[in-house]
Amino acid sequence: MTTRLITNIGQLVTNDPERDGLLGLISNAAVLMEDEHIAWVGKATAAPDADSVTDAACHAVLPGFVDSHTHLLFGGDRANEFEARMAGKPYAAGGIRTTVASTREAPEDELRLRLAGLVRELAVQGTTTFEIKSGYGLDVDTEERLVRLAAEVTDEVTFLGAHVVPPEFQGRADEYVDLVIGPMLDACAPHARWIDVFCETGAFSTEQARRVLEAGAARGLGIRMHAGQLGKSDGVQLAVELGAASVDHCTALSDDDVRTLASSDTVCTLLPGVEFSTKQPYPNARRLFDAGVTIALASDCNPGSSFTSSMAFCIAVAVRDMGMTPTEAVWSATAGGAAALQRTDIGRIVVGARADLVELRAPSYLHLAYRPGVPLVERVWRGGELVSFDVP
Amino acid sequence: MTTRLITNIGQLVTNDPERDGLLGLISNAAVLMEDEHIAWVGKATAAPDADSVTDAACHAVLPGFVDSHTHLLFGGDRANEFEARMAGKPYAAGGIRTTVASTREAPEDELRLRLAGLVRELAVQGTTTFEIKSGYGLDVDTEERLVRLAAEVTDEVTFLGAHVVPPEFQGRADEYVDLVIGPMLDACAPHARWIDVFCETGAFSTEQARRVLEAGAARGLGIRMHAGQLGKSDGVQLAVELGAASVDHCTALSDDDVRTLASSDTVCTLLPGVEFSTKQPYPNARRLFDAGVTIALASDCNPGSSFTSSMAFCIAVAVRDMGMTPTEAVWSATAGGAAALQRTDIGRIVVGARADLVELRAPSYLHLAYRPGVPLVERVWRGGELVSFDVP
Ligand SMILES: [Zn+2]
Ligand SMILES: [Zn+2]
Repeated sequence: MTTRLITNIGQLVTNDPERDGLLGLISNAAVLMEDEHIAWVGKATAAPDADSVTDAACHAVLPGFVDSHTHLLFGGDRANEFEARMAGKPYAAGGIRTTVASTREAPEDELRLRLAGLVRELAVQGTTTFEIKSGYGLDVDTEERLVRLAAEVTDEVTFLGAHVVPPEFQGRADEYVDLVIGPMLDACAPHARWIDVFCETGAFSTEQARRVLEAGAARGLGIRMHAGQLGKSDGVQLAVELGAASVDHCTALSDDDVRTLASSDTVCTLLPGVEFSTKQPYPNARRLFDAGVTIALASDCNPGSSFTSSMAFCIAVAVRDMGMTPTEAVWSATAGGAAALQRTDIGRIVVGARADLVELRAPSYLHLAYRPGVPLVERVWRGGELVSFDVP
Repeated sequence: MTTRLITNIGQLVTNDPERDGLLGLISNAAVLMEDEHIAWVGKATAAPDADSVTDAACHAVLPGFVDSHTHLLFGGDRANEFEARMAGKPYAAGGIRTTVASTREAPEDELRLRLAGLVRELAVQGTTTFEIKSGYGLDVDTEERLVRLAAEVTDEVTFLGAHVVPPEFQGRADEYVDLVIGPMLDACAPHARWIDVFCETGAFSTEQARRVLEAGAARGLGIRMHAGQLGKSDGVQLAVELGAASVDHCTALSDDDVRTLASSDTVCTLLPGVEFSTKQPYPNARRLFDAGVTIALASDCNPGSSFTSSMAFCIAVAVRDMGMTPTEAVWSATAGGAAALQRTDIGRIVVGARADLVELRAPSYLHLAYRPGVPLVERVWRGGELVSFDVP
């Protein structure tokens, strides 16, 4: 057993519900890590002895970011589509098909290599847990490849065969759903923890979404859902009815949707990078918080609608444009993400939790919103180990 | 003499007016550096021999960012004021006085150490030239200290004694201007290249601004100006009349201001971090470009209204919210910044220019806007030397 102490922490964000305030702040703090877990949390002056001691130089330390919604596995990029959109062309879900074509033809080793680059990019930005969705294969072989590759780097793998109807099933969406919940689910379920569907005009209807999610649940997969990105739908109601862990996007919600979410255990995951990169109006997080909805922030990192991997950027935008306070945004990017993944071992710095921590080159978590775009992450510990920032 | 070749550059942004397009792009390019200058630019297949060769792995390479407007020298921070503002309290220039109090009492070594931290932060983000303004001293001794410390780290030092009227001159702004253009200018001019004034309701009137700028010009200082941040004023007209290198902020401009700028050599410097961090409406860069105004992008890095130091972040926001194309934004953050500093040796990758280059971990400059918040800078050369990213 190895014990490591991080001490002289200027401000510790614990997210411990037993402490004061949403973030359970402790000033002049220390954290003891025992192998991959947290063994003690408190004032630096009361810290126990340890095999090694790290001085955090009065910096802020917080739980590693939990990015509960990404699409990190794909071929190609869509920089030119982005450029056209910035010049006025609207975002359309159909653009996903461009990435599907590149992903299907990408060799497995190339996909693995690109994924490794993005995983490293997340790590140096302080993300210690991330979910990955499939959904750029849309045939049995490629979807299986994507969930299998994702499972090599994370436990939080989501099967999203129902991302969009592929070109070869154009006009035959129900037949495509048959494939998704039949042979595709058979091939993918062993590698996945979650099932997801893009419930939106231009993608899948509420009825089709129900078929997909119920089939996944019957195979033991947890439920997540893309809904309310481009317009109002019954998606949120369906997500709550089926006990989804999270419903994601939620840009366009009715008052009824908000009430339904507030009285449920379903987390609402907001994705500020999407509205930023598609020039769409931002969702009103204030309305959701005030109604009592549990909110997560995630990057939605994907080559079409949001190619950011920066949780700090998401925090800054959520504060500027979604009506979140910096406190709420930091909670949502850590504990909120953990809730969206139904995890209690991450997103908080409490005894027994995983030792996933981020040290900022700043005295306060406020700097994540106060200093937008600045790479403030100084050090990251994942499972008690210091993450190397060196390029491999 | 040492020659260094950077080759296998996927996309080279030269900003060379003799090449095609605003950015003068070259694909599959190479750049030869001879000591601190650029000696050759062209296709990789035609590259000359060199003492050392660096493979840019098909990445994009561009001129180092030129940040022509910063306030990097100050004591304290204003994270709590930022937090209050995000909860609805409006930004007021008077908040500058908080920083003045902290800066006056900060020991010189502490100011130097904090500046070194910010300078390193700029370097790892690809900024190879930056201007620094004084203006948080507002007494002779402290202003002198600030311009002297700034001159230790950059050639682009601006004396901004006329930032705001300090508390001890409350109600006696004209007397404060006497001090600024008398003993304060005497003490500061030897360390500075530029003079600047904050011409705005709550700061200095157009008449006071004229006195400050003309006194500076009489001492051989170049003219820059803060105007049009919080409301329309005659500041832009005055800046152009006096031949200012740049007028900065320009959020609130009349049609007449735009015409005046377009027919002048004065650069219009936009500061997207300010509108982002004060929740103000963004200026319309499209209108300025279409009128033929030369535009620079800068960070305005300061603890009150914009504590970002990321030029990449400024580019992303300018594209999303100011109507710039990614191409225009990248030009404005490099060649535009150079124009705002009246420099032709930086901001472009041409023979004879300083060898200030940034390599992105991306195939195209588009990724600076396409991947907001992501630290994409892979390597930086300043005066031909690779900048170390190691923490000192
Ligand atoms: Zn998504
Ligand atoms: Zn300024």
